Amino acid sequence: MTDKYKSLKEAAYEANMEIPRQKLAIYTFGNVSAIDRAAGIVAIKPSGVPYAELKVSDMVLVDLDNQVVEGSARPSSDTKTHILLYRNFPTIGGICHTHSTYAVAWAQAVRAIPNLGTTHADHLTHAVPVTAVMTDAMIQGDYEHETGQQILDVFQQENLSPEVVEMVLVACHGPFTWGKDAAKAVYNAGVLEEIAKMAYLTLQINPLAPPIKQTLMDKHFFRKHGKNAYYGQDC
Amino acid sequence: MTDKYKSLKEAAYEANMEIPRQKLAIYTFGNVSAIDRAAGIVAIKPSGVPYAELKVSDMVLVDLDNQVVEGSARPSSDTKTHILLYRNFPTIGGICHTHSTYAVAWAQAVRAIPNLGTTHADHLTHAVPVTAVMTDAMIQGDYEHETGQQILDVFQQENLSPEVVEMVLVACHGPFTWGKDAAKAVYNAGVLEEIAKMAYLTLQINPLAPPIKQTLMDKHFFRKHGKNAYYGQDC
Amino acid sequence: MTDKYKSLKEAAYEANMEIPRQKLAIYTFGNVSAIDRAAGIVAIKPSGVPYAELKVSDMVLVDLDNQVVEGSARPSSDTKTHILLYRNFPTIGGICHTHSTYAVAWAQAVRAIPNLGTTHADHLTHAVPVTAVMTDAMIQGDYEHETGQQILDVFQQENLSPEVVEMVLVACHGPFTWGKDAAKAVYNAGVLEEIAKMAYLTLQINPLAPPIKQTLMDKHFFRKHGKNAYYGQDC
Amino acid sequence: MTDKYKSLKEAAYEANMEIPRQKLAIYTFGNVSAIDRAAGIVAIKPSGVPYAELKVSDMVLVDLDNQVVEGSARPSSDTKTHILLYRNFPTIGGICHTHSTYAVAWAQAVRAIPNLGTTHADHLTHAVPVTAVMTDAMIQGDYEHETGQQILDVFQQENLSPEVVEMVLVACHGPFTWGKDAAKAVYNAGVLEEIAKMAYLTLQINPLAPPIKQTLMDKHFFRKHGKNAYYGQDC
Repeated sequence: MTDKYKSLKEAAYEANMEIPRQKLAIYTFGNVSAIDRAAGIVAIKPSGVPYAELKVSDMVLVDLDNQVVEGSARPSSDTKTHILLYRNFPTIGGICHTHSTYAVAWAQAVRAIPNLGTTHADHLTHAVPVTAVMTDAMIQGDYEHETGQQILDVFQQENLSPEVVEMVLVACHGPFTWGKDAAKAVYNAGVLEEIAKMAYLTLQINPLAPPIKQTLMDKHFFRKHGKNAYYGQDC
Repeated sequence: MTDKYKSLKEAAYEANMEIPRQKLAIYTFGNVSAIDRAAGIVAIKPSGVPYAELKVSDMVLVDLDNQVVEGSARPSSDTKTHILLYRNFPTIGGICHTHSTYAVAWAQAVRAIPNLGTTHADHLTHAVPVTAVMTDAMIQGDYEHETGQQILDVFQQENLSPEVVEMVLVACHGPFTWGKDAAKAVYNAGVLEEIAKMAYLTLQINPLAPPIKQTLMDKHFFRKHGKNAYYGQDC
Repeated sequence: MTDKYKSLKEAAYEANMEIPRQKLAIYTFGNVSAIDRAAGIVAIKPSGVPYAELKVSDMVLVDLDNQVVEGSARPSSDTKTHILLYRNFPTIGGICHTHSTYAVAWAQAVRAIPNLGTTHADHLTHAVPVTAVMTDAMIQGDYEHETGQQILDVFQQENLSPEVVEMVLVACHGPFTWGKDAAKAVYNAGVLEEIAKMAYLTLQINPLAPPIKQTLMDKHFFRKHGKNAYYGQDC
Repeated sequence: MTDKYKSLKEAAYEANMEIPRQKLAIYTFGNVSAIDRAAGIVAIKPSGVPYAELKVSDMVLVDLDNQVVEGSARPSSDTKTHILLYRNFPTIGGICHTHSTYAVAWAQAVRAIPNLGTTHADHLTHAVPVTAVMTDAMIQGDYEHETGQQILDVFQQENLSPEVVEMVLVACHGPFTWGKDAAKAVYNAGVLEEIAKMAYLTLQINPLAPPIKQTLMDKHFFRKHGKNAYYGQDC
């Protein structure tokens, strides 16, 4: 069984190790998972293990009913959030959660990150959405599942596509990002931290800084994404 | 005698070396101590020695009456603060003092750090308290002892437990943190610096950012601490 | 043919690699080009390639009509901006575009960076100019060419010399810098990021901070530039 | 002759190399000098040489009349500022000039750095003074000499001792620091940058943050300096 999911666990492990490399969290904070859609199996970081000690073989395998399938360690305490997103966002292949400093600051401020320039627009054609503050009933109920539900709710309310907007801020908590695979999910966490810092500084310099024009936002997004893209290499 | 306290001095040394590794102070600033409760002996950094030159054998041993028991160097000038905390907080095993930038800024602002999100709530269910500004009599008296007294006073006034709140800001000075051992004390210094920065940024983005809800604060703290914790590994 | 432009491609490659070394952009963001004026050939970074994977042989050669002359990869999506600048600024030998954090913040704030001190004045005797926000027609037309046109427009309107002012902010986007060669172009990108940060902090400390006096600005610029310069070594 | 000043040049070289190590300036910015008081000879960084290329043998020797005594390179363009300070502050053995980011921001803001806490008070019992803005006549006259004169003027006006206050901000320019030797001068440049950042953050958190009490300021300074000091080791 181990061999069967070797590459899945390696992908999850490598993406997790990008968190400290890109300075997206300190100590044990944060976690990344990767999914094998055909098998319905997710590899995720074990809970509370420092990155410096993490090994490929530590990755825990869970199924889409939140049951541990392989691994002696307890999976990330945020596992149910990941699973709910995998069940509802069928095209994503990896999810990342960090406590990166500037993204957390926006989440704690309970403010969406406005789309102020092309660095942001290169990656998404919206503000980075922020969820509502959780109700006491959600917090005291199935908390990590409800965290995922908050994310689904804001995407539904703002009519967002998880293929266009691959990041969200959970109010009073921090960012979740995703993508076609685990590497893209953690890449998006790095992008989010950078645009969170840029937006912070922009509004400190000019509190009336205008949001980017719709045309410029679309230009930058669609020169990188979709069938008319001309950024990057085809191979 | 040296052999008897070898592991105590090693624990203190390793925790001290985390200060420059985690960038919690420059040059010689900061110090960590570790206590052997059975023996009533504390190992602490010698005063004014740069981290790059520090050796295990430099750790100074002092007893709970502030007397040097072993070591040719003068112990940290903050030794009496450490000793008073050890005498009054009987369950702690290590203490750390840094001059980390954001924590010092809150201390100089004479402001408690509000609990604004889950990064903070994962570690304590209160604001990070700040002591009163010292009176002239305390400053001109037994200063380092009185610094410890200030900390005890704010814990008593705000009815805080040193097992739940493992960190404090000394007004116009900087942070002290502690924990079950020296490694946990310096870990808490790293956590404090991070939440100090996050709180700073949050209030710059939104000066009216709400404190975290009591339910969410409790949820995050108690999923990591106490008998119902489910974060991390049991072993 | 490869051998003929070997040194041109090496110069472009080395200057591109300074972007991550100086932390002027994350991931694949940013690009530098170098021109061989005699041949009318420009070497530029291929589009969307991470710096860690970049090789000298990846540099794409394009002519001044934006045609690829050598190289299997697609050139930077910003190539037309570079080419328009080379055609209109005849004395420059290299161009750099980054998404460095503080420079982008000023660009997103649509604010010129005021000349507040000698660090800035050592490099240019003006504010760092910011272009107008692009019209929809320009964005939906030949976008990257029009980005260059915006830069030419602000230089004409403010009567600036590209030999004295080697940097500009494109509104809602980010910085372009240039110089006598590619190494100087990326050096200027590093200088711009530093003065962008200093100006940000200065105005946070004192929103009424005065611009540098004309005499002091001239003193610092001309002790480093022109026939009476006495900074640096002659060789 | 070379051998005679070998240790002086090594001391100047080592102190200069601390500037990039402590991230106190980018590229070629900044310079440190060391003086041999008995010989009346100063070793100083050559002008405009990048730190990565600097060698001990590059240090230029100048006398107290600003004449080059040894060295094929042109000395730092700030040499006359150093010399005037050495002539007027007879007990100092080294001088450092950087363009460190936060110290420059305060200099550009033309604001003294208030003494807000013990990190600052551990090193000096005053605000960090800022000079007046130079007159046009001074700028257009013997500029670098007049820069030194500005420093002397503010020390006279505020009745400061260069042995107690080892740092100053030159308005619209940046910091100069000094000490008993070149190593202490650059150490003070690192301390200044840290307290400049702490003071910036403190006033952002609480614009009404109180200056440190006189008693606490004196306590911290004199436990580290003078005949009753008990910080550090005696040897």
